[in-house]
Amino acid sequence: MTETLSDIGEFGLIARIDDFLRKEGIQTPGMTMGIGDDAASFLPRAGYELVVTCDSVVEGRHYLPDRTTSLNLGRRAMALNISDIGAVGGKPLYALVSLGLKGDTPVTNVEDMYRGFIAELNPFEASVIGGNLTKSGNGIFIDITLIGEVEQGKIVRRSSARAGDTILVTGYPGQAAVGLQLLLNSHTTEDLSDHPLVRVYNTPSHRAREGQVIAQSGYATSMIDTSDGFLGDLGHICQESGVGAVLMREKLPLSEDLRKIAIELELDPYDLVLKDSDDYELIITCSTDHVNRIRSAVSSISDVTVSEVGRITDASDSVKLILPDGTQREIVPAGWDHFSK
Amino acid sequence: MTETLSDIGEFGLIARIDDFLRKEGIQTPGMTMGIGDDAASFLPRAGYELVVTCDSVVEGRHYLPDRTTSLNLGRRAMALNISDIGAVGGKPLYALVSLGLKGDTPVTNVEDMYRGFIAELNPFEASVIGGNLTKSGNGIFIDITLIGEVEQGKIVRRSSARAGDTILVTGYPGQAAVGLQLLLNSHTTEDLSDHPLVRVYNTPSHRAREGQVIAQSGYATSMIDTSDGFLGDLGHICQESGVGAVLMREKLPLSEDLRKIAIELELDPYDLVLKDSDDYELIITCSTDHVNRIRSAVSSISDVTVSEVGRITDASDSVKLILPDGTQREIVPAGWDHFSK
Repeated sequence: MTETLSDIGEFGLIARIDDFLRKEGIQTPGMTMGIGDDAASFLPRAGYELVVTCDSVVEGRHYLPDRTTSLNLGRRAMALNISDIGAVGGKPLYALVSLGLKGDTPVTNVEDMYRGFIAELNPFEASVIGGNLTKSGNGIFIDITLIGEVEQGKIVRRSSARAGDTILVTGYPGQAAVGLQLLLNSHTTEDLSDHPLVRVYNTPSHRAREGQVIAQSGYATSMIDTSDGFLGDLGHICQESGVGAVLMREKLPLSEDLRKIAIELELDPYDLVLKDSDDYELIITCSTDHVNRIRSAVSSISDVTVSEVGRITDASDSVKLILPDGTQREIVPAGWDHFSK
Repeated sequence: MTETLSDIGEFGLIARIDDFLRKEGIQTPGMTMGIGDDAASFLPRAGYELVVTCDSVVEGRHYLPDRTTSLNLGRRAMALNISDIGAVGGKPLYALVSLGLKGDTPVTNVEDMYRGFIAELNPFEASVIGGNLTKSGNGIFIDITLIGEVEQGKIVRRSSARAGDTILVTGYPGQAAVGLQLLLNSHTTEDLSDHPLVRVYNTPSHRAREGQVIAQSGYATSMIDTSDGFLGDLGHICQESGVGAVLMREKLPLSEDLRKIAIELELDPYDLVLKDSDDYELIITCSTDHVNRIRSAVSSISDVTVSEVGRITDASDSVKLILPDGTQREIVPAGWDHFSK
């Protein structure tokens, strides 16, 4: 019979998780007290600011329980927090994991989630230092707080883009959105887990390392990850910086895979790039003179492409798309709003 | 018509919360970036360790939606995190609030929750610096991560109690448990909100200031809050320290209110003190010579009573209760286990 949380209880599960993390996890230098007390503790490094973010993944809302594994769920939940830390230029250090679980959840599912967490944390020498377990009436939630560090004064904000800046984007936004569309349009019996775009959806990437070197370079005027969709997040930059933006449609990075599937599913490929979310690329703005500096910072550690897609304008809060024939279209930078009707 | 979250959307709600916090909240010295970016940031103080904890409150599991107000819910959720920080000797600084909400949740309820958060944070010059909002299928959850600081080397752990130490407890554990019993045994129409024990349940206290001065004194060998019930948490100290404990029943602090209601409801008053939870007192161990030092540390800032209730023994993991007639009873230090059947 499958061992469930009701079988081993809260403290049994804490002991199991603690044991697993000791074996498979990493002890981040600086940690002074880990799981098993009222609070965890660490000694911060002199000359560094701490950055902290928190994001949750809720069953039925952010993932399809029958289409993902606990391992991938754990990876996704951690990756999106790592993405946030990277988007301000930070290096992830310490995670707190709060889980809402059902009594009949198999213990191995929770262990697999943790396997996912540390698969994302270990490469940064980051670790889970605490958390909380609770019974949740209906559906699982994973709520993660991630703490990172940035050299003092090197944080890159959303609010400091300037008119005239070039807009850059990493990778190919929209790939995961297409992966999700593929899953939603398929039969449950069909195994699509090896499809490249479904893989992108199931194990989302992040650009935290790229974000770190971009911040260290000192050349970005603003930065954000695309967790609310490219347009939603460009909209955040415009709003917080009091600026506008012009995008060239033919410069938007469109992968061959995405173009192909968009045709198959009769979807507008540019809508997939601009509007949908679920992958975690970076939007960066910088002075036109510094585009190559940003590019070389990124290429020093990664082969992710950096595309120049437009320009920041002083037309506050207005985002325009320029089509190949030169016509302009005003677009609404609305992203993923959790409560919109 | 009541304005709901669906009416103003996620970003509308974030703007509303941000606005509210600017007006009513406090900006903690050290904060360098607050709500409105991918992450928040702060500059830690030299010579201090950071302590961090995370705890959640789930509708139907940790509170009765029809018996509490959003304000009290917010206070409770924050107080129990403050209690954890205080239980290791820390001063609360920065909170991240992750909310799972329903689309039909009135906006004023969320504002009232935040009113509750800052009612608890403001006295410490602590503030909400970030968080997350998500739609939750069924029932609200509030998940809070709280970061605090302790002078380097002054953290008090669970794991360092020594045989021969005196066991102390602050206040009157079990008061809130009785308040809850009163509510559960009453008619929904009855207004008990002014009953002193119901008030203790609705707006739980914490002993974070007491925990801070106890840690600063350097005389506590171990400390924990009673969030899993007195016995559950004494059990955690015993387990983590590899020791046992003997308690004198007649020394357990029993308030007149508790004694009276226990008789009315035909409940064992000692069970209420030892087993139930929902209030957040501190259990402290220290060498017998230092009891008065702990007492004067506490009385320097507060008039909370500190009772001597027993002794730490070397009988690993065994907790004994000595009755007034001298007979001993072995008791099982089981607390509040979220998944136990």
